[in-house]
Amino acid sequence: MKIISDIQEMQLFVRQAKEKGMSIGLVPTMGSLHEGHLTLMRQAKKSCDVVVTSIFVNPTQFGPTEDFAKYPRDLSGDSEQAAKAGVDVIFHPQPEEMYPAGYSSFIEINGITQKLCGLSRPGHFRGVATVVTKLFNIVQPDKAFFGQKDAQQVLVLKRMVTDLNMNVTLEVVPIVREKDGLAMSSRNAFLSPEERKAALVLSQSLQLAQKLVNQGQVDAQNIKEQVILKIKQEKLAQIDYVEVYSYPQLENLDVIGDKALLALAVRIGNTRLIDNTILEG
Amino acid sequence: MKIISDIQEMQLFVRQAKEKGMSIGLVPTMGSLHEGHLTLMRQAKKSCDVVVTSIFVNPTQFGPTEDFAKYPRDLSGDSEQAAKAGVDVIFHPQPEEMYPAGYSSFIEINGITQKLCGLSRPGHFRGVATVVTKLFNIVQPDKAFFGQKDAQQVLVLKRMVTDLNMNVTLEVVPIVREKDGLAMSSRNAFLSPEERKAALVLSQSLQLAQKLVNQGQVDAQNIKEQVILKIKQEKLAQIDYVEVYSYPQLENLDVIGDKALLALAVRIGNTRLIDNTILEG
Repeated sequence: MKIISDIQEMQLFVRQAKEKGMSIGLVPTMGSLHEGHLTLMRQAKKSCDVVVTSIFVNPTQFGPTEDFAKYPRDLSGDSEQAAKAGVDVIFHPQPEEMYPAGYSSFIEINGITQKLCGLSRPGHFRGVATVVTKLFNIVQPDKAFFGQKDAQQVLVLKRMVTDLNMNVTLEVVPIVREKDGLAMSSRNAFLSPEERKAALVLSQSLQLAQKLVNQGQVDAQNIKEQVILKIKQEKLAQIDYVEVYSYPQLENLDVIGDKALLALAVRIGNTRLIDNTILEG
Repeated sequence: MKIISDIQEMQLFVRQAKEKGMSIGLVPTMGSLHEGHLTLMRQAKKSCDVVVTSIFVNPTQFGPTEDFAKYPRDLSGDSEQAAKAGVDVIFHPQPEEMYPAGYSSFIEINGITQKLCGLSRPGHFRGVATVVTKLFNIVQPDKAFFGQKDAQQVLVLKRMVTDLNMNVTLEVVPIVREKDGLAMSSRNAFLSPEERKAALVLSQSLQLAQKLVNQGQVDAQNIKEQVILKIKQEKLAQIDYVEVYSYPQLENLDVIGDKALLALAVRIGNTRLIDNTILEG
């Protein structure tokens, strides 16, 4: 497995692979890899000749008060895991090369970014769309792999790829969970043992919602209120948002019919966690 | 010469050309072709196996009070001229296919767009950057050809290509002028015979400035004032802006040293014309 940090070297590698007729799969990550990422990589390996994973903690998708500086970084641990998952190249660019002095170009996606994490984290999806566009242009993947854990991110990137006629197929992989239900996240590493237990309230509240829907409760507002009640029972939890939207349109809805996204962001102590599920009525 | 209006058909053509190892040159235009465009096409033909010219009056780069609706359109005349200039494919997409319902993705370039035409035409360069990105993704050119007439556009697009790591080389072709000095523009067709004469004040004021610089006048403010005085002598002319900036940085400057961009936008009757020159001290 190669580790490439230079953009031009990455471009040269891609050009040579393409000349040999090889297909390229890209798994964009911010590193601190967990089973969720590794699932994306193994999935990429199944359908692409070459798998590139980018490891880049992207400054433009963090707000000024967010955890950019303390976001976990572990390149050597990541390299070992990525190699085992079948990755051929880790692309690990430096922030100064991705955003040199004078940098001034950004991708803005309207509409769908004005809710959920887009509302709690202004500029977040602008940063995500921009770095993903840069990675797509550098790595030129045939397919790019993202986790459904970031449900809104997936919808924003699909919108971008369609709108801007980008030559890449997005592959979305289901949420990977710990045995007890907690969605895998690099930020789980921040949780104290007590907080780790409290964090179960996210997945448990999603399970409750699905159970209620299975029992025939289809009033979206009522489901949302029950989820909020459930989370409020956990004293270490503080709700950022709990929302139910039509899926994949992300529009307001009264009744859970065909498919609805139940998405939540909850602070456990100082750590903001997200989780979601697709409810089917 | 082929005329393709369907995006997928254009993508198929490109894929087949690339499989044959052919290089692609793109000349993006809004049609109503003149000698400036044709020069770009002939230039493209010299260094690319396949020349694609897009003819698309792009709604997103026009402001609500601008001349989108009345912008001249003449596909059959354009086709004849493009074929003679060596164009292989005219790509002529429909606005509804480029911007379908729900379209929401835009490219924003900061800084350099906050002056000159970017200031007079808010959102103009957002529209330009967005449509050019779409065209680049659809046509995947090795080289794309633009005229120095739109000096700021060239700088904005260079910034975008560099920032977003786009896989295309921008080729810039000097301004093509009528014999009497008027810069070629599709909008010249709007001028009455009297206005056509008055429009000479643009190129004449640029010539005056270069003459003053050649004579040793290097005070940027003074040059600017003399250009303004010259234009004001023409009663049909109304100045939108006259600016002198360092080139290519587009920063304020006091003394014309190495290279400076003298750029102007002037209304002749109802028609807004632009012109520019690089002054060298």
